[in-house]
Amino acid sequence: MNLNRRFLLSRRPIGTPRPDDFSLVQTPIPQAADGSFVVRNRYASLDPAQRGWMDDAPSYMPPIKLGDPVRATTVGQVHSSANPGFAIGDWVLGLNGIEDYSLVAPGGFTQKIDIARSPSPSYFLSGMGAVGLTGYFGLIEVGKPRRGETVLVSGAAGAVGSAVGQIAKIKECRTIGIAGGPVKCKRLISDYHFDVAIDYHGKSVTALSAEIATVAPGGVDIVFENVGGDILDAALMNLAPKARVILCGLICEYNCAEGKIGARNIWQLIVKQATMHGFLIMDYVPRFAEGGAQIARWIGEGRMRIDEDIVEGIENTYSAFMKLFSGGNQGKLILKIA
Amino acid sequence: MNLNRRFLLSRRPIGTPRPDDFSLVQTPIPQAADGSFVVRNRYASLDPAQRGWMDDAPSYMPPIKLGDPVRATTVGQVHSSANPGFAIGDWVLGLNGIEDYSLVAPGGFTQKIDIARSPSPSYFLSGMGAVGLTGYFGLIEVGKPRRGETVLVSGAAGAVGSAVGQIAKIKECRTIGIAGGPVKCKRLISDYHFDVAIDYHGKSVTALSAEIATVAPGGVDIVFENVGGDILDAALMNLAPKARVILCGLICEYNCAEGKIGARNIWQLIVKQATMHGFLIMDYVPRFAEGGAQIARWIGEGRMRIDEDIVEGIENTYSAFMKLFSGGNQGKLILKIA
Repeated sequence: MNLNRRFLLSRRPIGTPRPDDFSLVQTPIPQAADGSFVVRNRYASLDPAQRGWMDDAPSYMPPIKLGDPVRATTVGQVHSSANPGFAIGDWVLGLNGIEDYSLVAPGGFTQKIDIARSPSPSYFLSGMGAVGLTGYFGLIEVGKPRRGETVLVSGAAGAVGSAVGQIAKIKECRTIGIAGGPVKCKRLISDYHFDVAIDYHGKSVTALSAEIATVAPGGVDIVFENVGGDILDAALMNLAPKARVILCGLICEYNCAEGKIGARNIWQLIVKQATMHGFLIMDYVPRFAEGGAQIARWIGEGRMRIDEDIVEGIENTYSAFMKLFSGGNQGKLILKIA
Repeated sequence: MNLNRRFLLSRRPIGTPRPDDFSLVQTPIPQAADGSFVVRNRYASLDPAQRGWMDDAPSYMPPIKLGDPVRATTVGQVHSSANPGFAIGDWVLGLNGIEDYSLVAPGGFTQKIDIARSPSPSYFLSGMGAVGLTGYFGLIEVGKPRRGETVLVSGAAGAVGSAVGQIAKIKECRTIGIAGGPVKCKRLISDYHFDVAIDYHGKSVTALSAEIATVAPGGVDIVFENVGGDILDAALMNLAPKARVILCGLICEYNCAEGKIGARNIWQLIVKQATMHGFLIMDYVPRFAEGGAQIARWIGEGRMRIDEDIVEGIENTYSAFMKLFSGGNQGKLILKIA
């Protein structure tokens, strides 16, 4: 292939992204010069955060520019290099774009990875990557779980949620997972060893709150929140004193054009002297090797299972991305580019 | 006086309390026996939290029982005693009721106070009491202000807010106060030495958010939230990275019969890796003497000013209490019972 296929953001989505918010174009392969190098992207991570980057709103990263490829963490191999630190064929992980080839400027986020440590290079985008490490550092460093505590996880069948549930069990906590539908709920128990699975489908905040209260009469010590909205509101009504709420994602809100819901029951934070922590993995980048090694060890010992949902072909990016919002993916959603 | 006037909760308010949710009755003065003692209440604290205790909802304290006096922190003197630790005439601070005389069971919250330390016994309900100490411990222990940081205070002309603003200045922070109306805003600058005063009256979340952004272009490091609703939403849009939001009160919500608003912009906690802390003073009861002494020192040095709004007469309890919600009080609202 002599061309670079690129999946561009051509218009800022309003609410749910539409196919014509994007365009797939072909351009020449970039040339490495002056310390830069070119990465042949093999896998790209598809994450809810990308929806946020498509808005022109204050965030921890600048919005994706119109006409730029959709920003994504990718795993790939160095294709050409004008940087002595990166040789052709080296495997790298970095914040690039959804495109065949990314030009990487010197001093960026891209780092070399040792794929021998991993069952597949794609694992650096799932269990051993930002997703697994979000669960790991979010739960352990922010949540500080103690043996015997109760941990409530929303989006529990998802990539982050399933990692959190399994790590909480390893830390000898009681785990309650919330997911949508009986199939996912069954997987919470069979695949991720949650103690209790709650199906949120068709339930009001009041009904969901009552169901949590039934299975956690003493309240929930840690809430690992991936969803937001009604589910977060129900969780807030069931906090144990001094509970920690880890706000990792609010996926139910990312496509709301008509205004945010937020959390209606934050008054319970006062009543329970609880805290809510906005969590981003970025602070923990210097500790990725440590966390990744621990997760690799647990995988090797059979104590942790990582599921991936790999969609092939850059031409399928839009439909793959939409799975994140329909709840259609089973495991970490990854685009296989080449 | 041979009778005990008592201000009872006779019906649970729906939304804003109404006069006939309460009744003022006269009963005989209680008798001390078996380790109990009777306190002649002189001052009672009127606080937003009392509105919460009137609801039959999960909280950090049981709801006030129908037919019981409205629970209040009071300062008074021992009237009769069957407890060797409390002699007639001793000044005491305790969680009692809005009534002339309270019977105090052994082992309760009531403690003796040294009124010589204080300009007036009522100060144990204001600057040197839970209100001043809420500002003190909330700001210092939870907010952990560092020199040069920006502190945003809502309800800034109120009893807690004005204490927070002054302590933040003592800690060499830049202070922005939000209050309703030009009179209060003027007092923020002249009486409490805020660097900036913002009048929220008639402003949308967007307008308020833009105004905060103008005066704090680098964001706000600490939000001390006494109000909630639109004001909290605007504050959340202006967080500095790693900001701390101290959730002390949500007074704009306490009378909402039609459902809570909460915080619509909590997604900004993730973006800014910020935390929101539900704060109650109860944990700090063992450190009250330390905090009270520090505040008394600042008052003595002229570095801190405490304002009280003292309403006389138990028969005026209802109208006095309603001032909390209309914003009519200037300084800590206290009922003088005798």
